[in-house]
Amino acid sequence: MEIWVLRLGHRPHRDQRITTHVMLAARAFGAHGALYTGVRDESMERSVHGVVENWGGSFKVRYVESWRKALRDWRERGGRVIHLTMYGLPVQRVIDEIRADPSPKLIVVGGAKVPGELYGEADWNVAVTSQPHSEVSALAVFLHMLYEGRELELEFEGAKLRVIPQERGKRVERLA
Amino acid sequence: MEIWVLRLGHRPHRDQRITTHVMLAARAFGAHGALYTGVRDESMERSVHGVVENWGGSFKVRYVESWRKALRDWRERGGRVIHLTMYGLPVQRVIDEIRADPSPKLIVVGGAKVPGELYGEADWNVAVTSQPHSEVSALAVFLHMLYEGRELELEFEGAKLRVIPQERGKRVERLA
Repeated sequence: MEIWVLRLGHRPHRDQRITTHVMLAARAFGAHGALYTGVRDESMERSVHGVVENWGGSFKVRYVESWRKALRDWRERGGRVIHLTMYGLPVQRVIDEIRADPSPKLIVVGGAKVPGELYGEADWNVAVTSQPHSEVSALAVFLHMLYEGRELELEFEGAKLRVIPQERGKRVERLA
Repeated sequence: MEIWVLRLGHRPHRDQRITTHVMLAARAFGAHGALYTGVRDESMERSVHGVVENWGGSFKVRYVESWRKALRDWRERGGRVIHLTMYGLPVQRVIDEIRADPSPKLIVVGGAKVPGELYGEADWNVAVTSQPHSEVSALAVFLHMLYEGRELELEFEGAKLRVIPQERGKRVERLA
């Protein structure tokens, strides 16, 4: 199943670190790429692509002007849309249904202002707890549940660096 | 099992949002409280306590000057220490052992600079993927795996606000 993330309403200074963490969590937990709206931020894009360059895989980040158009394009390709929001249905009740649907999925995570219409546009509004926390944690736990933990075993093709897990300390292997 | 989080090296301006997200993810995924080192930040503490005030539970945030002393105090109470780091052992290999140990757990998550000695001080160095992502996602997925998803059903005592999950739109009940 193809999985992309759409991050809404990025503001370069204020959101740079949170958006970067959203993107890196998306990559680490198995999404194929991420779109974002708001203000284009080449420095954030570079920092995510720098991680891909060193740690492998083919995760892409792309700026899009309009979330409406992004959703329309996604649907034209046969994809469906999941909106992560604390007001949605509990993830533990809907994750099996989402996993059983083979269409490409776009997972939308909020930024500053989530437009009310998005709740109507999404195929699923999903809550990872009904408590306020973070788009970073909501996305990671959602992907972990979607992939049933298999994402923890992912290997990233073409990596220059790879961690050799240790009980104590750090060990990194240089591959290229 | 009592669970606290220790966030290292908080810097008020630069880290305010990430630290707030760490704290809120800790609370939402069932930790009992969080300590932090670095620079004291009353505005961050207020924003976390404001969430507790509205959304319930008894999650506490406390500033501590020294991570070494925090670890020493924790051990004196019979607690053990988990350090989340991408260089540690894969979470999927150690989570059952950690869950089977009934002692209180302190989960340490990095900030700007993680002191090398911490790797030696921790009882477990645990990697939630060996990829770079975010302390927010690492902590949330770790807690989700530790509690085996039961944290998604948590009720927070004394909440003034409670979400009534909806397929579309937002519904919040005011309780007090």
